[in-house]
Amino acid sequence: MEKKFAIGVDVGGTNTKFGIVDREGNILEQDRMRTDAHENAEDFVEELFNKLSVIIDNHGGKENIVGIGMGAPNGNYYHGTIEYAANLKWKGIIPLAEIMERKSGIPTRVTNDANAAAMGEMMYGIAKGMKHFITITLGTGVGSGIVIDGKIVLGHDGFAGELGHTIIRPGGRMHKGTGIRGSLEVYASATGVRDTAIELLTQDSDTPSLLRSYPIDQLTSETVFKCAEQGDAVANHIFEFTGQILGEALANFVMFSSPEAIVLFGGLTKAGDLILKPTIQAMEANLVQVFKNKVKVLFSNLKEADAAILGASALVW
Amino acid sequence: MEKKFAIGVDVGGTNTKFGIVDREGNILEQDRMRTDAHENAEDFVEELFNKLSVIIDNHGGKENIVGIGMGAPNGNYYHGTIEYAANLKWKGIIPLAEIMERKSGIPTRVTNDANAAAMGEMMYGIAKGMKHFITITLGTGVGSGIVIDGKIVLGHDGFAGELGHTIIRPGGRMHKGTGIRGSLEVYASATGVRDTAIELLTQDSDTPSLLRSYPIDQLTSETVFKCAEQGDAVANHIFEFTGQILGEALANFVMFSSPEAIVLFGGLTKAGDLILKPTIQAMEANLVQVFKNKVKVLFSNLKEADAAILGASALVW
Repeated sequence: MEKKFAIGVDVGGTNTKFGIVDREGNILEQDRMRTDAHENAEDFVEELFNKLSVIIDNHGGKENIVGIGMGAPNGNYYHGTIEYAANLKWKGIIPLAEIMERKSGIPTRVTNDANAAAMGEMMYGIAKGMKHFITITLGTGVGSGIVIDGKIVLGHDGFAGELGHTIIRPGGRMHKGTGIRGSLEVYASATGVRDTAIELLTQDSDTPSLLRSYPIDQLTSETVFKCAEQGDAVANHIFEFTGQILGEALANFVMFSSPEAIVLFGGLTKAGDLILKPTIQAMEANLVQVFKNKVKVLFSNLKEADAAILGASALVW
Repeated sequence: MEKKFAIGVDVGGTNTKFGIVDREGNILEQDRMRTDAHENAEDFVEELFNKLSVIIDNHGGKENIVGIGMGAPNGNYYHGTIEYAANLKWKGIIPLAEIMERKSGIPTRVTNDANAAAMGEMMYGIAKGMKHFITITLGTGVGSGIVIDGKIVLGHDGFAGELGHTIIRPGGRMHKGTGIRGSLEVYASATGVRDTAIELLTQDSDTPSLLRSYPIDQLTSETVFKCAEQGDAVANHIFEFTGQILGEALANFVMFSSPEAIVLFGGLTKAGDLILKPTIQAMEANLVQVFKNKVKVLFSNLKEADAAILGASALVW
């Protein structure tokens, strides 16, 4: 009998989401749990497999499962490991695929979370049918998955596609995690938008802004978006500034792999045209002739959690 | 009978070099001609084929030739064309493969000159056996060829790998050809080194330097190299500055495709450690942990013209 379902798991710094997926990309049942409640990966897998077992039993048992696919920060497809993930409690090299296979008896594949999302876009999302595209997650951080000739780019060691760490403002803002200055992630993430807001409001204390009415710990990319929608000039300027930097970075990525499209997803995309317009403008302004007016910049049409679960599940088909 | 030889042609802005190559990558005979002596591509191909015919006849005639491979600025592998090449006299879209096939009756393939060089490195040079590497040509301009999983990255339209045009100093020096500011090419090329020298010498007219003894039109990357070798502080600073920018750009490329090595060639590599040391230092300083101390930065061991001829010939095997 042909096995009918795959399990997709999206391991995030705070939460882990997982679901059972059929061959058409329908998530039949899903659930979530805390990632950060577990000091080590064995305990995490223990809880995860207990929860997965319920879902698996609801769908005819283990005999129906072709495999488990897991997306995780710094996940390495070649080794089935998580290696030195800054935002997980588990330090060093974690043989995640091996731990899960031992526990579950089900073949398991691991990859980088952003690569899993790109896979989801390619198989079930807006990039369906595309062979050359790049996904950029604009969330707490900036993640990326690169597809060339219909395949995720892994590089010689499985770590390719860390576009959030590319330098776009040399000598610029310091990244607290890496200690490196001027990376895309320190500007074009939710954290970056917040830091830009604080910088602008403190450097210039004269210009009136709705943003000044928020206590500093309520100043988030969402509040900046709310204020921008109400026509606040400072808030609008923050998105223009962010889009300018993001667009320059996208131009660089286009001149690397010449994709058909760039797919954006994650929290910042909720700002819609406020972020999209300055991004496209800056990208086009920095592209040399052969690339101009060719590359689509799109928002994902998958729910964020779904893209990652679907993409992870796609690893095992 | 198995055809024994391929023709490789390297079309440059000024000169075109060509040769006949055996399956082991030996260039058995080669010659060159002016590219810029011809106002249109048909006349160019006419002269080129006349010269090629002599070489072909010296090696047993057309029956021995499997094909003609041509590397050219803005060459497009998918279309067999040259499209909008800034440094050629032939404007618009030139169907080069078609013109050559019509003239010669020999199957012809065209690709980008930098991709041809990368192909040469992979088949016959220092990148032999590597599946993931990037070649960067530091010549009058900055060219690049990207190899992932043993294949040249062409992108959705055949124009991928324009790394010389990526932005590394936003708002920086203006590129005279593209009108865009702060690209790698305006700094890490022979032209860029010369412009840096002029900038430094004119901004600070006090610091003594051997470079001041040269008339401005003799101030080239070669004279800067000569002065640096003699211990001139300004000349040394120019290479440190250039290496800093090149290294930052290389870090960005590494975080894109995670190559095993970056292969540098072209005129600037004659400066040896003067350029290599600051480049590696800046690259490592801008790489996040998983990439550090992994990527080799190497000088090509092929003669520049040979790499391009060999790489172009490799298109047809």
